[in-house]
Order: sequence, then structure tokens, then C-alpha cells
Amino acid sequence: MIASLKLAALGLLLCVCSGLQHNLVLEDEEDQPVVQASKSGSLWPLPQKVLISQVPFKLIGSSFRFVDAKDSSAGASCSLLQDAYRRYYEYMFGSSKRQGQARSRKPGRSELTELQVRITSPDSDCDGYPGITSDESYELSVDQPFAILKAPTVWGALHGLETFSQLLYEDEYGAKSINSTAISDFPRFAHRGILLDSSRHFLPVKVILANLETMAMNKFNVFHWHIVDDPSFPYLSRTFPQLSQKGAYHPYTHVYTPADVKMVIEFARLRGIRVVPEFDTPGHTQSWGKGQADLLTPCYSGSEPSGAFGPVNPILNTTYDFMKQFFAEISSVFPDAYVHLGGDEVDFSCWKSNPDITKFMAQQGFGQDYSKLESFYIQKLLDIVASTKKGYMIWQEVFDNGVKLGPDTVVHVWIGSGSNEEMSKVTSAGYQTILSAPWYLDYISYAQDWQKYYKAEPLNFNGTQKQYQEEMANITSSGYQTLLSTPWYLNRISYGQDWMVAYKADPQDFKGTEAQKKLVIGGEACLWGEYVDATNLTPRLWPRASAVAERLWSAKNVTDINDAFNRLSMHRCRMVERGIPAEPLFSSYCRHEYRGI
Amino acid sequence: MIASLKLAALGLLLCVCSGLQHNLVLEDEEDQPVVQASKSGSLWPLPQKVLISQVPFKLIGSSFRFVDAKDSSAGASCSLLQDAYRRYYEYMFGSSKRQGQARSRKPGRSELTELQVRITSPDSDCDGYPGITSDESYELSVDQPFAILKAPTVWGALHGLETFSQLLYEDEYGAKSINSTAISDFPRFAHRGILLDSSRHFLPVKVILANLETMAMNKFNVFHWHIVDDPSFPYLSRTFPQLSQKGAYHPYTHVYTPADVKMVIEFARLRGIRVVPEFDTPGHTQSWGKGQADLLTPCYSGSEPSGAFGPVNPILNTTYDFMKQFFAEISSVFPDAYVHLGGDEVDFSCWKSNPDITKFMAQQGFGQDYSKLESFYIQKLLDIVASTKKGYMIWQEVFDNGVKLGPDTVVHVWIGSGSNEEMSKVTSAGYQTILSAPWYLDYISYAQDWQKYYKAEPLNFNGTQKQYQEEMANITSSGYQTLLSTPWYLNRISYGQDWMVAYKADPQDFKGTEAQKKLVIGGEACLWGEYVDATNLTPRLWPRASAVAERLWSAKNVTDINDAFNRLSMHRCRMVERGIPAEPLFSSYCRHEYRGI
Repeated sequence: MIASLKLAALGLLLCVCSGLQHNLVLEDEEDQPVVQASKSGSLWPLPQKVLISQVPFKLIGSSFRFVDAKDSSAGASCSLLQDAYRRYYEYMFGSSKRQGQARSRKPGRSELTELQVRITSPDSDCDGYPGITSDESYELSVDQPFAILKAPTVWGALHGLETFSQLLYEDEYGAKSINSTAISDFPRFAHRGILLDSSRHFLPVKVILANLETMAMNKFNVFHWHIVDDPSFPYLSRTFPQLSQKGAYHPYTHVYTPADVKMVIEFARLRGIRVVPEFDTPGHTQSWGKGQADLLTPCYSGSEPSGAFGPVNPILNTTYDFMKQFFAEISSVFPDAYVHLGGDEVDFSCWKSNPDITKFMAQQGFGQDYSKLESFYIQKLLDIVASTKKGYMIWQEVFDNGVKLGPDTVVHVWIGSGSNEEMSKVTSAGYQTILSAPWYLDYISYAQDWQKYYKAEPLNFNGTQKQYQEEMANITSSGYQTLLSTPWYLNRISYGQDWMVAYKADPQDFKGTEAQKKLVIGGEACLWGEYVDATNLTPRLWPRASAVAERLWSAKNVTDINDAFNRLSMHRCRMVERGIPAEPLFSSYCRHEYRGI
Repeated sequence: MIASLKLAALGLLLCVCSGLQHNLVLEDEEDQPVVQASKSGSLWPLPQKVLISQVPFKLIGSSFRFVDAKDSSAGASCSLLQDAYRRYYEYMFGSSKRQGQARSRKPGRSELTELQVRITSPDSDCDGYPGITSDESYELSVDQPFAILKAPTVWGALHGLETFSQLLYEDEYGAKSINSTAISDFPRFAHRGILLDSSRHFLPVKVILANLETMAMNKFNVFHWHIVDDPSFPYLSRTFPQLSQKGAYHPYTHVYTPADVKMVIEFARLRGIRVVPEFDTPGHTQSWGKGQADLLTPCYSGSEPSGAFGPVNPILNTTYDFMKQFFAEISSVFPDAYVHLGGDEVDFSCWKSNPDITKFMAQQGFGQDYSKLESFYIQKLLDIVASTKKGYMIWQEVFDNGVKLGPDTVVHVWIGSGSNEEMSKVTSAGYQTILSAPWYLDYISYAQDWQKYYKAEPLNFNGTQKQYQEEMANITSSGYQTLLSTPWYLNRISYGQDWMVAYKADPQDFKGTEAQKKLVIGGEACLWGEYVDATNLTPRLWPRASAVAERLWSAKNVTDINDAFNRLSMHRCRMVERGIPAEPLFSSYCRHEYRGI
């Protein structure tokens, strides 16, 4: 046994993706990568610090246990953890029954029988919801007499369980093994999301759950649910049931009932995933108009209404009455602290055609600038949503149009061209931001486009020095002492909770860049729905989104594309083995191919 | 009932893809097509002649029957037909049990209770295999007292059953209905194929069968099984079992046993589909070398073997002994009259490095022209295969290199650039050809690429007049009588069965173009395996390949892209309803979405 340690340590890394008795010949084009063993095994995304030794332990399904450590703040009563133990046990050992006999068997010396899980914070957050400030860190030690997983909260513990399961491999005799390992891990970015669009095609709940499951395998923590849009309104609102009755593709078979939504949220919570719903207005609302009279702007053809409708009608009080009630419901249905309010791609042509809008523009002194009308609407909407105690995310146009935003607003950068400049602008204005521009996964192309997503870097923009910061840098570099007041001229007031801007200013931060980069809280891979539905969504998303997962979780210098290819090849086979039809990276095979069609 | 006929006739066409009680709003981009009713309903591919009236009949699962006509040459003993009845009954009515009570119910006046199926040729071909010369035509009349399907052979009957099932719709009350209809149909091209590649990724038999099933729904009739290639050799040969033992990704889980191959062939036969296996040599053979010593050329690095191997070694007698035995097996395992012998993309660098090859080149007087060595090999291989009484297909390079081909050879045109010129060259040399160049479905791109495949036209090349044909045209256009001898100078001999060339020459055919275009016998959609396996193959293939299906079956002037969009949208929902994860064309929905993930 001891003599074959080295071999075992290496063999295991190959074994997920290689077969028996023969070498791999995977490429038929010379410039293509070859699957090889990575020193980090099949870990994905790569932990911040990881040390895998060459000492293997055996794991046997009949005797292995997850155990709540005695001093853990979450124990048997924490159903989130108990549920996770069951899930990972099944991933690791399959769903085969424990053999009763084996329970009295004395474990062998090189056997690992226990993973102790210790939640270290007084509040484990077991019954809470994950949030943007949740601590997701964990430490994992695999050693004798037992492995230990320590995490301040259950959210870190979930990630640690995933990592633990990824350390498992089969040795050359098919025995489940794990090497002595030390890992210390935390995410680089707090917001790591996937956008799915259930309007252009309805996504059965089963499909959403399968993808939440897969998100957890990739340490994603935000499901951005672009739930309604022009083509259909599948959200069944208790307050306005006619929205889906009239606006869904079908009022029964193509809607999300309150029970469905609840199930999605709880399923996500159990996996450490936030559900941020998007109700995009004033554009992208054609489907809203079917069930809510007067909500949309009637378009005119000459002096007569054409019968078509444009964006939400921003000049009627009824619009805001509706939004108040609607978002009151949304804020109570969705527990997350954020709602995504959209605000992208507003087409002004219908507004321009409508004589009542024209009159209103004149009254307000907007001139011909319809972005002012858009801002007028959004401003009122933001106030409504703020009154529900929710924060909001918005697409970048809202920021670009100069709408006054609350200081905790998250600006979502999506436009491909100039996204670096946009990131720079948004953060120099002091707003938090998330990046999606390089990660529009609905756009497909031949071959290994995951590499393109992998190489995108959210912090590759130039920061903007504030003038006073440059001055501070000059003064101190000349050796003088200095005192700062610029960010604290409290006679200057601005909209919203400006105390936070004052609070965040750091007299020692002379480099705008660094301060700005702290405002980049993450990113999202977006899979818009024009060309995907239940038939093809899952293989189109995975493992392409996995590339984004590692970019957002792992350290900035984790950029070795060959090592990534090797680990990701094995990670995708693991997803397949867990029942997820994740598509192949290139010619090769998985020991257990996907069973389905 | 009568009053609502028109509505019913229209409603039905919408119903496959639309829901209840609301209009369709499918597009959010103005230049995108909208799903509308086509006057041809959901028929795909469009039959040659079709007349759908507005007179509907009801179909009731409990009383509807497929009946063999009394004067049919295939009756209850034809299990191919009986199997097809069962299959189409299930497609049409689901697998719900017949209700015993209903059997004694007297059918209503507007009810259609029977489709009579009459095979008109003395030989129905029920127990045969479909072939390139099979008659696939059929005539379908849907009327009272029963519908009639007439076809010379079972192959036409299968297509007719598919068409019949496509005429079914649900009226506004959900009742299954069919309109009085007259159809006369036959394929434009005899060879309508799909290439699947089971070497770059192993495709479980289940996946292959599901795609054969879907091919039948699209009237494809050739499964081109690119079964082995560089990465793996999953074909389990009885004669040389070591080929898959050593060359497959895994010797047990990633091979096709003789029983698997038999099952695939029979499953295909029952659906009117030929199975043409490809054993590509001398290149693309890395996996062959693992189980067959000395088959591949040892590459040299300087004066020493490098350990790597190149194409099949063409200078050893053992190579040809092997090929003789191997193709003897292949010719008995695969019943089709054709074998695809590959012959594409031979890399000369390894041959160039090998001193024995260099010596052989000199002995043969090949100079530095390695394509002569390639032809030397292929020529011998063709002789071997011809001796097994099989015809062969080859990739275009074999023709380009000037190899002498038997007159019944099918040249497979695949290289994208210059494919029109290639079609012209191949056919002016008198060879049959099939086209794949515009239909490499492994190449993907954003949005509706099916339109690109749909617009490709196999006969869009310029013909080459033979000199004597120009002369004939000149003479006759001047009003003189003439007599032809040029193609029949029998003192001029050439390799192979040149009597066929003589036989085919038509003294009345002055237009090289027309004669050439008759030599285009069809095309194939190719889904190479680098980036597809069981996880994503089916939705990637369908409905994109359906575009090719209509191009190869329907009349040349069926080119209305909007009508195609409408019919194809409904056809794809029908595939989904039959359990096939065919991906969406654009934002929209199916009444019954795919159930799976």
C-alpha cells in the first residue's frame, strides 16, 4: 500500500476522466489541449489555498459519517446542514443502501470515517438567507483521525462540503480515496451569479432546480431570475393574477405559482444561493400590458392610436399606484435584500408618437430629451422600491442617464463595447457594480469558448484618481504631513443616504483605482432565453458558466489555461456523473457517460 | 359544426404552437419572424403535392385503426408495417389505453375511423433493406369513408404514415382532427443522410436510436455512421477484437458489440433508414494502431523512430492482408450496398520522415508526390472492398488525387470553399456525388443558423458541357440530323465497369448541366463529434438538421423562409411532444414542453 502512494496520488487525478488499461488520445488537432493530471486534482473553482499531500485514506460508504462537531453552533436541528450531508453522501457514494453488517466492522488504519463540521460563529445563519455580506469562507483539513470542516456560517460549510466531495477519487482498484489535504478558502467576489430568462421561453421548475443544483457545484451564489419580459409574464401575482392569466404563454401550464416560487427560493437557500428577481421596466414590458389596462403607453400612428403599445406609461398616477402594490408583493415574496429593476433598452419611438406624452414633456420642461422622461419614471420607481426596504440593482443605462441612485445601488454593466470604461465610471461615482458584459453565454460560437469567458477579468479597468487623492499623494510623497477634509464638506448635500459616501472615504487611500476596485462586487453569467428552453439550456450553460465561476471565486492569478482545462474536464465529468448534462470541452470521454437523451 | 369549419381549419394550424385564450407575441426584435399559420399546416418536409381542404374529420383513439388493404402486397405478416402502426398510433393518441366500451360505439358522421394502407408492388420489400434505388413515393388521400395510403413499397408507406400523423391537429375543443387532404409525394434526392461521429465522443446506443427515430420524423434515409477515427475505436470486431479492446475509450463501457450494431441496423431498417458505416483510412486511424501492430506507419525523428505513428502503412503486405479480412467482416455485418471508405485529410509528414517509405517511393517512381502513395494505397483498398461486392463512398480528396474509381462510386463533397466547382468537376467526370459542405452542423453560431442550411441548394453549380455535347447542340440547332458515337468508342478502355459510362450516355442530352445534376444523388448533414456527446447532441442536431431534410426531400422551389419558419416551429414542437429535445428556433413555447432536463 505504502509503496504505491505516489502512483495512487497521481492515478486518482486521471481516473475521473480516463479509462482502464490504456492511455488517453484525446486530441486530433495539434494545438488542442490534452487532458492531464493537475496537481490540484479535479477541484473547481480552485480554492484560495490548497495543499494536497500524497497520503491517501480510504472512504467506505457504509462507515463514513458527516458529524456535527460538539462545539458547532449548528447541529442536528439545522436541517440545511443535514440536507447537505445527505446530498453529498449521495454524490460521494451513490444512493446504494448502507450494508447493515459493515457498521460493526472496525475501520482500517488508513480509513477516514468522519468529517466533523464545525460552525464557529455564534449565529450559524442556518435558518437565514444568504446575502451579499455573508461570510462564505471555510477551512478544510483532511487528516487522521478525522477530517475537519470549519466555517463561520453554514454558507461556508456548504462550499466546504462541495470541496470535500471534489477531493474524492477512485484509486486503481476502484476504492474511494481522499488524500490528506489542507484547504483555506473564501471567494474573491461576493456576488457570483447566473441569469436565467423564463420569459422568452418558459423554464419548467424542474429545469430551474437542476441548474440551482449545478450552481452549488460551482460555488455560484446568486440566481438572477429574469422572470418576465416582453414575450411572456409567467409570474403568478397574488395581487394582480390577471398579469399571468393574460400575459403568460399559457395561464396554467406556463406560470410560476406562489408555491413554485417558494420552492425555488428554499431550494436555492439550502444551497447557499440568493434569488434576486428582476422585474424589468419601463421597457421590456409588452406582456405586462395584456393583463393591466393603461399600464403601457398607447402608440400613435399620426393622430390616432395605432393599437400598439410602448413602454410603461410614465405620466399616469395609476402607473405608480400599480407599481406600489406590485412591488409591495414582490418585496414580501422574495426575501433577498435586492430586487433587480432592469431599466435597460427603453425605446423612445412610442413615447414620441403619443400626444399626451408630448404635452407632459413640455410641462416638465424636458425638451426633446426622452431620457429625462425615462429618468422621471425610474426615479419614482426607485423611491417606491426603497420604501419597501429593498435595495436595488439596475442595468447600466439607468446610471448612464444620470438618475439619482441610492448609495447602496448595484449597477449592472452589460454592454459589451466600452465595458471597462463603464466600470471605471460607475465605480468612480462610488457605486457598487457587477459585470456581465464578457459573459453573455447565450451568444455561442464554435469550439472552446469557455476559454474566452475564463480569460475575462472584472478588474481590468483603469481607475480614476479623484483630484484630492492626487493632491494627497503629492503632499505625502514630498514628506509633509497632511489632514483630509474634502470628502466631508457636509454642507454639500446630495440625494439619498450620502452619509455612506462620507463614511466610506478613506484618508489613506490615495489610489482611486484600489478604492474603485473594491466596489466591483462580482459578476453574472447571463443566459438569455431567445434560443434556449428545457431542451438545451443545461448543456449550453455548463460547463461554460463554470469558467465564470472560477474567475469570480478563485484568486486573480489563477489563470493557467492548461491547468484549467485539465481540472474543468474532470469537473464536467463529475457534473455528468451527478446527472447534469454538462457538455464536453473537447473530444474525450467520461467514465460514466450521461444517461438520458 | 359546419359553421366553424373555417375557424377549425385555421385554428388547428396554430394550435400546436399556440396556447389558449391569448395571442402570440413571440418576437422582441422587429426583424424576427412571427409564428403564423401556414396553409400547409405543420407538414415537414413539405410534400411534393399537397391539397388540404377545410373539411375536418374527427379521430378517436378508441376506434381509429390502421388497416392493411385487402389487395396490399404486405399484410399482417409484415412486422415492419405493424410496428410502424403501433408507433404512429402512439404518436397520434399517446400511449393511453383504449377504452373497451368505446369499441362498440357507432362512429359519428364526421369521424375518420380507418387508414387503409396498400402496398402496390408485388414485392413490398417488407423484409428487405432500403437502398439507394428504393421507391420511396406514396399517395395519401384523407376522405370518407376512410383514408387511403398507397405506396409501391413499405419505404413509401413509412413516409406516408409520418405525413398522415403530421396532418393531425387538435381543434378548439381539444379533439383530434384531420382535414380532408390529398397528397402525392416523393423525394427530390435519393440519398438524405445524417453523419454521426462515435469516435471523438462515444454515443450510447440509446442516443443513436433516438436520433434514428427523429431522422424518420424528418424523412432522412441514410445514417452515415462515422464509427471510428483517431480518438477511439468503439467498433467491436469479431475478427480483430483487440482493435476495440485497445483502441476504444473503454473496452466494455465504450464499445458497440455485434448485438448493438445489429440492433442499430434493424431499428434503422424498420424506419426506412440505411446504415452506411465509415471506416476511414489511411488517415484518421490513430486508434486502429493500438490493437493492430504494424498497421500504422512509424514516424521518424532523424534516423530513429520517434515512437509516434502516422497513417496506415501502405508499403507492407500485412496491411492489405488485414484490410481484406477486416472489410470481409464489415461487408457481412453491414447489409447496405455501400461502405464509406473515408480517404480524407491524409497528413504526409510521417510518411516523409520514414526511410522505408522513402525507399518505396523511389522504387515506385513516385518522386516527391506523396498523393501518389496515397492513391497507391486507396487503389488497393478499393479493389479489396470491390471484391466484397460492396460499392463505396469516398471523401472528395480521393477523387481529387486522381484515384481510379469504379463507375458506381459516390464522391462525398465536404470542403467548404469551392464546393460548387467540386460538384461540377465530380459530375462532369461522370461520378455520383453527395453534398455536405454547407451542412457541417458541428459548426455553431448565434441565432437562426437553420436558415443558412435551408437556403443551401445542392444543384447551384455550373455544369460543364462535354465537347461532343456542344457539337450536337450546334448541329441540331442548325436543323441538321445527327448521329452520336463519341461516348461509345469501345476501343478506349478504362478501369472498372466502364460499360456503365457507355450505358448512361444519352444522345439527346446536349446540356452537360442536366446530365451532371442527375448525378447529384443527395446530401448529408454532418455532426462531427469534437464538441457533442450524449449531453448535447440531440438538441444541437434538431431542428437544425430538419432544414437540410426539407432541402433534400421537397421540390426545389420550396424556399419561402417565413412559411418554413412557421411549419418548422410546429414541427419542432411535435418532435418535443414525441420526447425528442429539439431546441427552439426563437422565443416562443410549445403546448407540451420537454419533460427532462
